[in-house]
Amino acid sequence: MTDLEAPLRRFEEALAELVQSEVLFIRLIHQDLVTAGGKRIRPRLVFLASRALGGAPFELELALAVELLHSATLLHDDLIDEAETRRGKEAAFRKYGNAVSVLSGDFLLSRLLHVIARTGRMDLVERFAQVAKTLAEGEVLQFQVAALEDYSLENYERIITAKTAALMALCTEGPALLRGEAPEVREALHRFGLLYGQAFQMRDDYLDLMGTPEVLGKPVGGDVREGKATLITLLLMERFPEVREILRRRGREASDLERLRALAQESGVAQEVEARIRRKAQEAVEALSPLPENPYTLALKALALKEAERLA
Amino acid sequence: MTDLEAPLRRFEEALAELVQSEVLFIRLIHQDLVTAGGKRIRPRLVFLASRALGGAPFELELALAVELLHSATLLHDDLIDEAETRRGKEAAFRKYGNAVSVLSGDFLLSRLLHVIARTGRMDLVERFAQVAKTLAEGEVLQFQVAALEDYSLENYERIITAKTAALMALCTEGPALLRGEAPEVREALHRFGLLYGQAFQMRDDYLDLMGTPEVLGKPVGGDVREGKATLITLLLMERFPEVREILRRRGREASDLERLRALAQESGVAQEVEARIRRKAQEAVEALSPLPENPYTLALKALALKEAERLA
Repeated sequence: MTDLEAPLRRFEEALAELVQSEVLFIRLIHQDLVTAGGKRIRPRLVFLASRALGGAPFELELALAVELLHSATLLHDDLIDEAETRRGKEAAFRKYGNAVSVLSGDFLLSRLLHVIARTGRMDLVERFAQVAKTLAEGEVLQFQVAALEDYSLENYERIITAKTAALMALCTEGPALLRGEAPEVREALHRFGLLYGQAFQMRDDYLDLMGTPEVLGKPVGGDVREGKATLITLLLMERFPEVREILRRRGREASDLERLRALAQESGVAQEVEARIRRKAQEAVEALSPLPENPYTLALKALALKEAERLA
Repeated sequence: MTDLEAPLRRFEEALAELVQSEVLFIRLIHQDLVTAGGKRIRPRLVFLASRALGGAPFELELALAVELLHSATLLHDDLIDEAETRRGKEAAFRKYGNAVSVLSGDFLLSRLLHVIARTGRMDLVERFAQVAKTLAEGEVLQFQVAALEDYSLENYERIITAKTAALMALCTEGPALLRGEAPEVREALHRFGLLYGQAFQMRDDYLDLMGTPEVLGKPVGGDVREGKATLITLLLMERFPEVREILRRRGREASDLERLRALAQESGVAQEVEARIRRKAQEAVEALSPLPENPYTLALKALALKEAERLA
C-alpha cells in the first residue's frame, strides 16, 4: 500500500499554519491559492521518494518547501500567463491586483526560507538556492524566447527542464540528500524527477493545445496566445510556415486554434508528440532501476507512466 | 577614518559576479538596476556596524544579502509604485514587461539564498526568513490600507517599520549576530537600525510630497497618486476633510498637489513632520549609547542625523 493520506493530511495542516498572516489581503490570496488545494503533485513526490528509501528526516519540511516554491511561482506567473483560471479559480491578481499577487508570492518565499531553516541542513538550503535560480532563469528565458521569436527544440528543452523538471528533481532527490544516501541513489532519484518533470510539462503543453476545455477545466490555446512555442507547435513549424505566422499574431484570428489542432492531427505531429512523452516516461521508469523495487518505487513509476495518457 | 571605499569596491565586484546569468533578459535587467549602483545605504550600514564592533565574519555576505533583498523588492515594487523613474533610470518593467521584472527579482532572491547558505549560519537564514516575511507583509498592508482607505497613524507606523525599518535593523544587528555579541549589543544595534529606518522612510515620504523634483531626480506626488497616506497627509487629514477627498481621487485634479503642499506649509504640519523625523533620528543616536564611541559608531549616528535635513 502506498497510502499517503496521513502524511498529506499533516502536510495540509502544517501548510495552513505556515501561511497564516495578520494581513487580511495575504489571507485572502492564500485562501484562493494555497489552502484551496491543488493536486499536491510535488509533496506526493517527496513522500513517495522518502518512503521508497525507508523514510527521510524532515520529509514534511521538504514537502512544504517545494510546494511553497511552486505556489510562489504560480503567483508570480499569473502576471505572465494572464491565465483566465488557475486551479479552476479566478486568478488571484484579477481580484486584488498584480501587486498583492506578487507580494503574497514573496511572503510564501519567506516561509519557504523559514521552513528549510528549521531543518538545520545547509546543504538543503544550497539545493533550494540552485533550483530557485534555475526556475527563475527558466521563466525569464521562456519570456525572452517568445519576445525574440527565438524558437528551437533546444530552447524548449531548456525551458521545461528549468521551469518544471528541476524542482521535481529536488522533490525526489531531496529525501536521499536528507538521509545521506550514496551518490548513485541520489543520482537515480534526481534523474527520475528530471525526466518525470519533463514528461509532465510536455503533457501539460500538449493538452494546452490538444486538450478538451471541459475536461481540463480551463480554455485551451493559452500558450499560443502568449507566443510560446511548445513541442507540438515547434514540430509543426518545421513543416508548415503558416504556424510561425499564427504564433506571431498570437492566434488572434478566429480559426487559428482549430487550424493548429487540425494540422497536428492530420500531419501525425500530435501522435509524434505523444510518442515522445511516452518515451520520456519510460526513461523515467528506467532511471529508478538502481533502487530496490517496493510499493513506493512502483508508485513513482506509475506516476510517470500516467503522463503518457493524462487528459487533465 | 571611516573610509568604506575598499569594502564597497569588493562589494560591487562580488555583486556583479553573483548576479551573472546565461539568460540575456536577466542580464539586461541587472545592468539597469543592480549593477548600475544606487546609494548602497544598506551595505554601508552593514560595514559600519561590523567595523563598530571590530569586524564581523561574513560581513561581505551579509552586505550582499541585504542589498539583494532590497533590489528584489524594488523589482517587485515597480508594479506597485508604477514609479516613473527609479534611481533615475526608466523602471525596468516598462522596457521588458512586468513578467521579466518580477522573475528577475526572484532570480535575485535565489542568489540571496545562495549567499547566506555560504555563511553556514542557520541563525542568519532564520533572521532573513523573518525579515523577508515582515517586508512582504508590510508591502501588502500598504496596498490594503490604500484599497480600504484604512488610514491611521498606527497603520503608517506599522507599514514603514515592516517595509523599510526591519531590513535596516537586520543590517546593523547582523554583524553583532555573526560575532556572537551579547544581547545588549545586538539589541542596541537592532534598535538603532529600526529607528534609523523609520526616520529614513519618513523622510522619503516627506520629500515625495514636499521635495523639489529637480533635486530628487523624480516627480513628486507618487504616494498621493497611489492613494497612500503618509505622515504628512495623515496629519493634514485630521484638520482638513478635503485631504481625504484628494487622496480618494488620487490627486487627479490639476491643483491637488499644490493644494496639499500649501496646506502643509501654512498649517505648520510640514514643520511638525520635520520635527518628528528629527526626534526619531535623535532616538536612533541614543539607541547606540551602550556601544563604545569610535569612528564607526559616530558615522552611524551621523547617518541618522542626516535624515533630519536630507533633500534628496
